[in-house]
Amino acid sequence: MTLRAWPVEGIGEIVPGDDLAAIIVDHLTEPLADGDVVVVTSKVVSKAAGLATSGDRESLLEAKTDRVVARRGPTRIVRTYSGLTLAAAGIDASNLEQGLVIPLPDDPDQSARELRAGLVSLTGVQVGVIITDTVGRAWRIGQTDIAIGAAGIAPVLSFEGVEDSYGNVLAVTAPAVADEIAGAADLVAGKLGGQPVVVVRGLPGEWIRNEAPGAAALIRDEGDDMFGLGARDAVLVAAGRGDTRGFPSAEADDDLLAMAREGVDLTLADAELTDRSIEVRPLNASPAAFIEAGVLAERLRILARAIGQDVTITVV
Amino acid sequence: MTLRAWPVEGIGEIVPGDDLAAIIVDHLTEPLADGDVVVVTSKVVSKAAGLATSGDRESLLEAKTDRVVARRGPTRIVRTYSGLTLAAAGIDASNLEQGLVIPLPDDPDQSARELRAGLVSLTGVQVGVIITDTVGRAWRIGQTDIAIGAAGIAPVLSFEGVEDSYGNVLAVTAPAVADEIAGAADLVAGKLGGQPVVVVRGLPGEWIRNEAPGAAALIRDEGDDMFGLGARDAVLVAAGRGDTRGFPSAEADDDLLAMAREGVDLTLADAELTDRSIEVRPLNASPAAFIEAGVLAERLRILARAIGQDVTITVV
Repeated sequence: MTLRAWPVEGIGEIVPGDDLAAIIVDHLTEPLADGDVVVVTSKVVSKAAGLATSGDRESLLEAKTDRVVARRGPTRIVRTYSGLTLAAAGIDASNLEQGLVIPLPDDPDQSARELRAGLVSLTGVQVGVIITDTVGRAWRIGQTDIAIGAAGIAPVLSFEGVEDSYGNVLAVTAPAVADEIAGAADLVAGKLGGQPVVVVRGLPGEWIRNEAPGAAALIRDEGDDMFGLGARDAVLVAAGRGDTRGFPSAEADDDLLAMAREGVDLTLADAELTDRSIEVRPLNASPAAFIEAGVLAERLRILARAIGQDVTITVV
Repeated sequence: MTLRAWPVEGIGEIVPGDDLAAIIVDHLTEPLADGDVVVVTSKVVSKAAGLATSGDRESLLEAKTDRVVARRGPTRIVRTYSGLTLAAAGIDASNLEQGLVIPLPDDPDQSARELRAGLVSLTGVQVGVIITDTVGRAWRIGQTDIAIGAAGIAPVLSFEGVEDSYGNVLAVTAPAVADEIAGAADLVAGKLGGQPVVVVRGLPGEWIRNEAPGAAALIRDEGDDMFGLGARDAVLVAAGRGDTRGFPSAEADDDLLAMAREGVDLTLADAELTDRSIEVRPLNASPAAFIEAGVLAERLRILARAIGQDVTITVV
């Protein structure tokens, strides 16, 4: 099996109201075939939808931001209402007239479904569509393209419970193929060449399915992500600055009291769990005991937020 | 330009001491050409290096772990000594005789250089080599292949300061092309088919360079990563459990005192910065004032760790 990917050349400037499917089909030098995946940058989808604006970048960012994930200097990594986690909500000014900014499509999976319907109707062949954006990653330098919208192509496979030829249950259970296809397309699109549409051919036929879920299937649920807040931001949030949605859901084995009592002088103060409330007690009437009770209470409050335990903490 | 990727078929089982370059060249159905990139899974590199072991998985994990990044239930995301952040340090048991486990190569860039030297010497053409592993991501479901080793191929491009055709300085300045190539190769390798070697052809010739840095160039430096700790783990570390290397370096504009004083009853206790030390003072001799001083001191300690400020905090 050979995978092939090539740009659809000569697409030129996209303006509001453009029919992307018709423009793509007009510029094909080779007809689309069953099983092809058409990969389109979100930039041209947003341009065709007329989303470019000369409005204020900050207001636009605020409107797209569900919550701030991490903040550092001028950089804000946010989670958007569509569930993507990325710098500045994906709002961009490149490959656009100077002075304009453009947000991501509001519902990239819907955009993908519409584009796919247009392509299928014009060509009569069953293709998949992926809409991409370029994002940074935790832990790694540089950016890659990922699938923010998809239609007619499996975004992620499932090998759960499948055995390899040695009889081992596979450790890698869910290849995110739509993201890998988006990255492959980016290799031929070229940031500078400005080729916004790439055709990918040669993927396994069973990945191309009418009823495939969209790229939303690639988004981890809030509360199911260990990295829903930057490290520094997590501590600031736990200390009371901002909402706590970025923390993963509580685990049964998190023993809040045991964690908080470590490092506290338990001859001076201690705490006890009563129903949904924790009572912190100074163990004598000295200033040192009252101070240690304050230490223990504050530590309990901060840890409780981090591990998602909803308890009342009082010093008695 | 068309990108092509196909697996080198029939490679079969790799055993310790195998000469991977010779085996790859033996199985080519089409000769390698200048500018091709040969993508190889780390699994076969580790197998050829004789790294598979029937030893204890936990001890192996400990030996490869520089520090734990996030922990949840049985899952541990760690940073390895080679700088990768991934589950279980990449130690795996799949596509391997039952009962064996195998770690990643210790120096994947060196493995890539050796394999490239072998391929160049056998074929006389200038190829790039990428060694891959399959990893999970923050924020997104599923796994993709990334480049953990590279030789002779630019791992990441730099468009810093480059303008698009509208005269905008590009927002995306560093496409991580080696990771995108790794992902593209994974699309044709197939987790179940077990094709460990893929040839990628058609990349821009200027990416294939003798002097290209290795895939280590794709690793964010410790202290330069906003997600160096899981959200929950960050708070636990700041509260005193474990080392604080996962926090990004301190920023000049982090005002520790201002952050800590928020939400504290400043009629009862307050704090003052003196040189590299913060003094917390109860403002009267009541139990409530001593307790509030303890609260403020503990909050200062936890925030100081998160923002990387090395200060001594005392209640006076």
